[in-house]
Amino acid sequence: MLDRKSIAAAASRISAYIRHTPVLRAELSGLPVTLKLELLQHAGSFKPRGAFNRLLSAGFQTPGQSPSADLPAAGVIAASGGNHGAAVAYAAHSLGVKAEIFVPSGTPAAKVARIASYGAQVVQIGESYAEALTASRIRQAETAALEVHAYDHADVLAGQGTVGREFEQDAPELTHILVAAGGGGLIGGVAAWYAGSAQVISVEPEGCPSLHDALRAGQPVGAPVGGLAADSLGARQVGALMFPIAQRFVGQAVLVPDDAIVAAQRLLWDQFRLVAEPGGATAAAALLCGRFVPPAGARVGVVVCGANTDPAKVV
Amino acid sequence: MLDRKSIAAAASRISAYIRHTPVLRAELSGLPVTLKLELLQHAGSFKPRGAFNRLLSAGFQTPGQSPSADLPAAGVIAASGGNHGAAVAYAAHSLGVKAEIFVPSGTPAAKVARIASYGAQVVQIGESYAEALTASRIRQAETAALEVHAYDHADVLAGQGTVGREFEQDAPELTHILVAAGGGGLIGGVAAWYAGSAQVISVEPEGCPSLHDALRAGQPVGAPVGGLAADSLGARQVGALMFPIAQRFVGQAVLVPDDAIVAAQRLLWDQFRLVAEPGGATAAAALLCGRFVPPAGARVGVVVCGANTDPAKVV
Repeated sequence: MLDRKSIAAAASRISAYIRHTPVLRAELSGLPVTLKLELLQHAGSFKPRGAFNRLLSAGFQTPGQSPSADLPAAGVIAASGGNHGAAVAYAAHSLGVKAEIFVPSGTPAAKVARIASYGAQVVQIGESYAEALTASRIRQAETAALEVHAYDHADVLAGQGTVGREFEQDAPELTHILVAAGGGGLIGGVAAWYAGSAQVISVEPEGCPSLHDALRAGQPVGAPVGGLAADSLGARQVGALMFPIAQRFVGQAVLVPDDAIVAAQRLLWDQFRLVAEPGGATAAAALLCGRFVPPAGARVGVVVCGANTDPAKVV
Repeated sequence: MLDRKSIAAAASRISAYIRHTPVLRAELSGLPVTLKLELLQHAGSFKPRGAFNRLLSAGFQTPGQSPSADLPAAGVIAASGGNHGAAVAYAAHSLGVKAEIFVPSGTPAAKVARIASYGAQVVQIGESYAEALTASRIRQAETAALEVHAYDHADVLAGQGTVGREFEQDAPELTHILVAAGGGGLIGGVAAWYAGSAQVISVEPEGCPSLHDALRAGQPVGAPVGGLAADSLGARQVGALMFPIAQRFVGQAVLVPDDAIVAAQRLLWDQFRLVAEPGGATAAAALLCGRFVPPAGARVGVVVCGANTDPAKVV
């Protein structure tokens, strides 16, 4: 059950391991906005929240404390477009657990290097996240490692929902929250936290419209995976667990073109000195290109959710 | 008179124009620290605080409001290693005022481009900040533009002191505040704000020891200008106005080698996804290389004060 209570419990569980990221009140294209600087999180994206909540809930504990005896000796295994893999590797490293991470062959070098830097085994396989996931499951059947799904698991969703909890704590005045969506872990958690008390708006690249298409179809459906932000937002289909939450609590599903994402990356550097990866800049892009126009009186929050790119690419 | 009252007045005066930058509680090299993310300020450094306070105090107002009739038609003029020039250009642009900015010939291209992007006239002249300042004063005698000194002016110091005021508001528990020093505008303002209620520690590159040398000599003295951070911390001599404040309220003057500054830049990117220029990473470097070792029970704050570099250079 994903609700404010399970998200608050996740927040307590993971608080020693993650950063309470700050907010910045500023203007974006002349509009007052509040940015949640989640790109300053450990491992460069929001993903460690869900990864730590999953590992700690399963019984892995800080080295020195006794974990449950029934935990798999093989540690953890995950498939990822990159950010989730880095987060699982980081969390596993922090908790003294082995990690094996499957990523598709097109994963940016910066992300592969990041995952390896945390001591995880990296396996590059398949053309897409979905194919890497299939390969990881075959491997998991051999090793019996704990699978840490990138989005479709209650503990992962509750962990990502702590982004919403912090955002509301630090900026309780917000009426509209823009969140990028891929598999839907972040937006599912955030929407479950707000539960209608603020309008949560999903923003996806035109090339990766998984939540937009699911909401239109009335169920998760296969969607195209392409464009600039595919490595972080390129799930073929949103998670089954998040979908009913999105149906209830996601007010609009906006699509943005890749050139608006590039413009948002440039603006975030030029006006804020923030390095956001394409997926991290996607929510802001909706404001820049006018695909989301705040109604009069709206107080808009934007989650800037990832920075795992080569910084030379943002200028 | 530079004191908490003049700094609070500056804060009111400039609040509509500058960002209240956030703090981030985190670990740096295993030590708990609170980072003041002043590198996210407009124009990429703390400098707009002093620039706006100077321009607004002199009578320049937002376009549409009537400025004092006796303001110079030539607008403002400033000499700078780069960041102050960008800040004055940004402030002048915001207030609809002409600006002419003198920078030494070695100023990084990123900073020259930034100054020009705000519509200012840029003059590259001389080998050092001191030479650019001399040239700007010859020009000022012709144009009668308002000089905005980079550090040695009460309104500039009071503006920079608002960094300390915000830091204390957001992290009142801090006992030690690490601040980089060049001409001493930032550390002078911050030390005047804390006025001994927290220990303010100056950090300078070994190549630019102007405050360290002044405190040892008992007066501002000429010091070498060299090394990686010279473009932002390379004043030949600290300001006359800040010096008595530093004598009273700066507890230690630490020097760090350039390789520690590079290591701090890399760590800020690697662990925080922050792009700091060398001068912006200098305060953090003192912790990394052990030139400042916090006493037991200390709660350490670090001002990360500038980001005006090519982001490709930090990885």
